[in-house]
Amino acid sequence: MDDLRRDLVTANHILAREGILDAFGHVSIRHPEDARRFIMSWARAPELIELGDLLEFDLEGEPVDSGGRFPYLERFIHAAIYEQRPEVMAICHNHTASILPFSISRTARLRPVIHTGAVIGGEVPVWDIADEFGSNTNLLVVNMQQGRSLARVLGNAPVVLMRGHGSVVASVSVPGVVSACLNLDKNARVQMQAMQLGDYIPLAPGEIARPAVAPGQSAVPDRAWEAYVRRVTGPA
Amino acid sequence: MDDLRRDLVTANHILAREGILDAFGHVSIRHPEDARRFIMSWARAPELIELGDLLEFDLEGEPVDSGGRFPYLERFIHAAIYEQRPEVMAICHNHTASILPFSISRTARLRPVIHTGAVIGGEVPVWDIADEFGSNTNLLVVNMQQGRSLARVLGNAPVVLMRGHGSVVASVSVPGVVSACLNLDKNARVQMQAMQLGDYIPLAPGEIARPAVAPGQSAVPDRAWEAYVRRVTGPA
Amino acid sequence: MDDLRRDLVTANHILAREGILDAFGHVSIRHPEDARRFIMSWARAPELIELGDLLEFDLEGEPVDSGGRFPYLERFIHAAIYEQRPEVMAICHNHTASILPFSISRTARLRPVIHTGAVIGGEVPVWDIADEFGSNTNLLVVNMQQGRSLARVLGNAPVVLMRGHGSVVASVSVPGVVSACLNLDKNARVQMQAMQLGDYIPLAPGEIARPAVAPGQSAVPDRAWEAYVRRVTGPA
Amino acid sequence: MDDLRRDLVTANHILAREGILDAFGHVSIRHPEDARRFIMSWARAPELIELGDLLEFDLEGEPVDSGGRFPYLERFIHAAIYEQRPEVMAICHNHTASILPFSISRTARLRPVIHTGAVIGGEVPVWDIADEFGSNTNLLVVNMQQGRSLARVLGNAPVVLMRGHGSVVASVSVPGVVSACLNLDKNARVQMQAMQLGDYIPLAPGEIARPAVAPGQSAVPDRAWEAYVRRVTGPA
Repeated sequence: MDDLRRDLVTANHILAREGILDAFGHVSIRHPEDARRFIMSWARAPELIELGDLLEFDLEGEPVDSGGRFPYLERFIHAAIYEQRPEVMAICHNHTASILPFSISRTARLRPVIHTGAVIGGEVPVWDIADEFGSNTNLLVVNMQQGRSLARVLGNAPVVLMRGHGSVVASVSVPGVVSACLNLDKNARVQMQAMQLGDYIPLAPGEIARPAVAPGQSAVPDRAWEAYVRRVTGPA
Repeated sequence: MDDLRRDLVTANHILAREGILDAFGHVSIRHPEDARRFIMSWARAPELIELGDLLEFDLEGEPVDSGGRFPYLERFIHAAIYEQRPEVMAICHNHTASILPFSISRTARLRPVIHTGAVIGGEVPVWDIADEFGSNTNLLVVNMQQGRSLARVLGNAPVVLMRGHGSVVASVSVPGVVSACLNLDKNARVQMQAMQLGDYIPLAPGEIARPAVAPGQSAVPDRAWEAYVRRVTGPA
Repeated sequence: MDDLRRDLVTANHILAREGILDAFGHVSIRHPEDARRFIMSWARAPELIELGDLLEFDLEGEPVDSGGRFPYLERFIHAAIYEQRPEVMAICHNHTASILPFSISRTARLRPVIHTGAVIGGEVPVWDIADEFGSNTNLLVVNMQQGRSLARVLGNAPVVLMRGHGSVVASVSVPGVVSACLNLDKNARVQMQAMQLGDYIPLAPGEIARPAVAPGQSAVPDRAWEAYVRRVTGPA
Repeated sequence: MDDLRRDLVTANHILAREGILDAFGHVSIRHPEDARRFIMSWARAPELIELGDLLEFDLEGEPVDSGGRFPYLERFIHAAIYEQRPEVMAICHNHTASILPFSISRTARLRPVIHTGAVIGGEVPVWDIADEFGSNTNLLVVNMQQGRSLARVLGNAPVVLMRGHGSVVASVSVPGVVSACLNLDKNARVQMQAMQLGDYIPLAPGEIARPAVAPGQSAVPDRAWEAYVRRVTGPA
């Protein structure tokens, strides 16, 4: 449990350092001993988060004991997905620049084109808050109704884009969500450039079904996680 | 007052570090106790500015007591906007690379496409110095007449582009102007790429009217400001 | 021999630092005293590799004595190319972002356009694993049959792209493979942008035949290698 | 004289740090006391150059006393331009990535579009080595005949592109050549993106004739130079 919480702190630092999270994104884990709770920092920038900043939340998105600290406004994203998807153990909400153009495009859809992009599944769904909540929001997910709407569009996929806002990535582990975020970003950058060259070859359905990067499913120690950790901690 | 001056120094360091300001941009604040004055460094690169570099200027752009140091040539940008817009408390003039293509485009206009881009208002106006001052200038704003011309095109907007030159961002606070500059930059990069994918969805008017990032209007401590400060100061 | 092994470790660090290798790429050298063997790390991220991580492999891709450590899954890339190309002394397999769009494009081919790009030869061949092994792989090269298929498409060229996956660069030396990877990357970025400007001039055949950068063939000490090393080691 | 040599060393470090020079570019100054000589390092990577690395060359490109060290192969670029242009006091030859697409484009020409881009003059000439020396060179300038050919295409301009190779920037001072290189790079990046947005407005002839950045012509201490130096030396 303490190790998992430390991994969550480290994941925040890694995703900030690798340019996935700005000062406003967040990462959470499902509570390992209570599937109806999840763990996430109070409303602090990811790069600054320490163990003591972590709070517990219920599946309505309410902090169990905030100690007077403000939670992220958009904690309902996490609550709604943990509620709907029992196998999901870690979630990241980000505003990564590379995926945003795909979130507002009327003509292009983000989809896996590189082998490590298989983790994003097939064509990535886009949730437009205006579809259900009109054109007078600030695009933020600020209650369970909006969170559940987003979770429905996510469905069983690993990733959903949010129009003009960002994405949500759901995974079975902390290293898994970090890896998926990084590969989502790289896949978006590659697809963007490939489209500028003309017609391109996406991954085939059979290739998407067999992710090359499957943290937690391999007997090999996760070499990427070791490297990402070292980048934020420096040499031992 | 001392805190505000320290914030201004910090804002210079942050905007340099985040790639918004090159060696030639500048940031100012309105004097908190004398609305007819503003505070800005002498003509030094933002990343090098210290408390002792700050000077006071009147609303004609003249330094009250320069102590023999050269002011920025383009101080009239600040003077004219403080003169015209009583609610504005902080201004940044920058040459951020991402917005420059939009400043010279005959076909595309910069406008908010991401939720944090709502702070740039609607379609961003472009001031072309040649319209009023002809095609033999060096594009710099070097007197009050030019400053007031620019302020007129800015109008009540938070941002104006300057053709082939840069932008001016006006805000109600120092963290606000830093945040607006960063979101202006990100919005420009996202819109540029979205246009390469084809047709895209901009923010709706009702979404622009409700900025997601509104420093000073929230009970939550500004998590981004804390992070930006840490990046320029290092761990405590 | 010890110097060569140290160079291999340094090449890993350089290629990671310069953005060529992510946590999953790898570099190898042919054993200088036994042409039927090659040397490469166990499955560790390049930036973390130390001398003690190096293993020896035979030309079937099997570790001679792994000491219980897991080899890279794709070691067969190296084995098959050392088997087929006796003059090759160093190989890098990477997933460099800049070359990936060309690996999936149906309309554009990567080819040398800048003088230091001459090292990539003429139009770069693309190996699509699906051509021979169907559309249900995870795109990884996990046996000698696949390695030899890739080596056949590489032929006598210095570089081959792998569809949706990465590239393989073969050279006569460690500095040579580092230099070729860096120039491959730069050439791809320049060609990408030149194509966005319209029609462009590639290198002529006679220009490709005379690489400007020919490490090991010059009486001048390799100034680039000295600089790359310094970047990863810091001042002496 | 010692100060000028130190400035040359610093300019090498600055241009390497700012991404203008890779391991193979070079910067020189005309000898301040002997207009028939120029000063440049032996064939070392710019980021590593120290005072003791500087050599003197005559206007045929030959080192006066090399002390057994190899000169840059392309020293004839410098010799030919100092020979032809008496007012030029500093020269940089670089392979900056942003300008290379323009050097090979059949359809687009690089030209000033931002106010600090005025220093590159009007439409930038492109020297194609193949025009005079055929298609079997390695694109390098390796003798005075080629250097003079390049100098003729440069003419009285501040910048010339070399097809598929790089550029040469000539200036009246060391800070001037550093500044011109940086603005050349930024102008190229902005023009590239503006062209992707559609039609754009270049600088007018009268705007080009009045460079906003004119080091050595201002009573204001060069704020940019101070900042660039600090970036390579750290705080005093």
